[in-house]
Amino acid sequence: MRGPRTGAKLLTSNFPLPTSDSPQFSFPTRVYWEDTDAGGVVYHAQYLAFLERARTEWLRARGKGQELLRREHDLVFAVRSMRIDFRKPARLDDALEVSVALRQCRRASLVIDQTIRRDGEFLVYAEVRVAALSAVEFRPRAIPEPLYEELKSLETTTE
Amino acid sequence: MRGPRTGAKLLTSNFPLPTSDSPQFSFPTRVYWEDTDAGGVVYHAQYLAFLERARTEWLRARGKGQELLRREHDLVFAVRSMRIDFRKPARLDDALEVSVALRQCRRASLVIDQTIRRDGEFLVYAEVRVAALSAVEFRPRAIPEPLYEELKSLETTTE
Amino acid sequence: MRGPRTGAKLLTSNFPLPTSDSPQFSFPTRVYWEDTDAGGVVYHAQYLAFLERARTEWLRARGKGQELLRREHDLVFAVRSMRIDFRKPARLDDALEVSVALRQCRRASLVIDQTIRRDGEFLVYAEVRVAALSAVEFRPRAIPEPLYEELKSLETTTE
Amino acid sequence: MRGPRTGAKLLTSNFPLPTSDSPQFSFPTRVYWEDTDAGGVVYHAQYLAFLERARTEWLRARGKGQELLRREHDLVFAVRSMRIDFRKPARLDDALEVSVALRQCRRASLVIDQTIRRDGEFLVYAEVRVAALSAVEFRPRAIPEPLYEELKSLETTTE
Repeated sequence: MRGPRTGAKLLTSNFPLPTSDSPQFSFPTRVYWEDTDAGGVVYHAQYLAFLERARTEWLRARGKGQELLRREHDLVFAVRSMRIDFRKPARLDDALEVSVALRQCRRASLVIDQTIRRDGEFLVYAEVRVAALSAVEFRPRAIPEPLYEELKSLETTTE
Repeated sequence: MRGPRTGAKLLTSNFPLPTSDSPQFSFPTRVYWEDTDAGGVVYHAQYLAFLERARTEWLRARGKGQELLRREHDLVFAVRSMRIDFRKPARLDDALEVSVALRQCRRASLVIDQTIRRDGEFLVYAEVRVAALSAVEFRPRAIPEPLYEELKSLETTTE
Repeated sequence: MRGPRTGAKLLTSNFPLPTSDSPQFSFPTRVYWEDTDAGGVVYHAQYLAFLERARTEWLRARGKGQELLRREHDLVFAVRSMRIDFRKPARLDDALEVSVALRQCRRASLVIDQTIRRDGEFLVYAEVRVAALSAVEFRPRAIPEPLYEELKSLETTTE
Repeated sequence: MRGPRTGAKLLTSNFPLPTSDSPQFSFPTRVYWEDTDAGGVVYHAQYLAFLERARTEWLRARGKGQELLRREHDLVFAVRSMRIDFRKPARLDDALEVSVALRQCRRASLVIDQTIRRDGEFLVYAEVRVAALSAVEFRPRAIPEPLYEELKSLETTTE
């Protein structure tokens, strides 16, 4: 009962393929021994950490370090739900590309589409719902105005 | 951009509450320092490991150790997709209960409903789709007959 | 460059075998997929987490939950250094026993001897040096008096 | 009973400072949420993973990918023992430098000195003993000749 192995037919297939002109962010990450399990492939929960690294670097690349957001804006982002498809396994030494595309920005939450690829081949798809919380009270709060406008302009969909 | 914090309103809410008469399996697990992150709560990817421990113990409790299944039946189970809601966070030292209920058993796949609770309070819901693979070829295969019948009898739904 | 595999001759051998009459504490833990790596054995860093689980349960068994120590006594224990021998590897599904023996209790630090066994066979030896720190200031502090006396009485050596 | 916090006086101090003219290798790595614990700092076992990433990249930089060594030379390296000092803690978002210096190359084992630094400040020192094993039999074996000569030429000490 572990991570994905290989090209078994996908059980659920309701993820849209990302369009190539999406304003995406991509972050490279490498697979080390620590990421693998006794099946010889990446342990399935570890893909969530890879996805989180890319979201962190996506914010950092926009000048929004999370430590800064927490201290100066009383804002933390927290994952509230995910859908994730493990299509093909990654292996030791693989060089992966993890993408981030902001599908929707609401007042107090984000919907983010992510993929993990190896040499252009899609291994993992994920839809991640993130809530904006007050860092002090851990309660939902609106995303502060300048950041909200900036994120809104990155949306890949119009709804 | 990390695990859940606290009682923010749930973004998606399409998980049915488990009915109390489901033939469920429950496994206790404890939160240690290794499971937490700098937010003071369990790192969100670590809940997937907790879920996997419970699935492993559910099979073990039925006499189906995964090492045995692999060696004697050329069978491994691999997670193919998940939906997961992180409703409330777990914290250091928490004693958790992780449930397993087999919603559906097909010829070469399972759909499993899982929850993580603390003192009866639901923290995490997950729907896990698992594929049966040949351990040698890593390709989809039918679940061998006696195990299939046994699992079929555990289904919580009739479809 | 990873965790230990199997019965290779030990490179360093300066750990004393624990004597059977040591006032030891022992904690059982199970190996899951998350603990293993692509070599088919437990990832070497994960043994440190197993050791920490046992130290935590050793304190808990004495009524000294770490959350309580932090809040009521402004005390946290932090690992400052370790020596660790990885003699034989643990594997998926192994049931392990992790021991804790307090070799020495000083005013602001502890030296703890630990082992990891499987069916009585020693897999890992560790000597762990732990500092007492103020939880607020993160600076060395004396262990508060009643706890110090209790720990002192558990010392396995007289020095 | 967890990772190091801050500038507490070191309990053991028998590591030589690395000399600046050592033929060292250095690898950058970043601290993410997954690496931290509820104390707000990097979980102590995770430093071992950082050290292993750097050893892996050190071999890769010399053209010795571990997958290649395993397949073509029936060789795997396994950690047999470590001494490690956790002097100061790393925190979320820290950019770390992990060094690798080969102190000694024997016929079937290596002694490697490693450090982890942040902005030139030493956070962690480690002495890692690694055994050469047959990938097939998991038993000690001599390092194959061309690799042995190459590693021998990298030794930082003459003994």
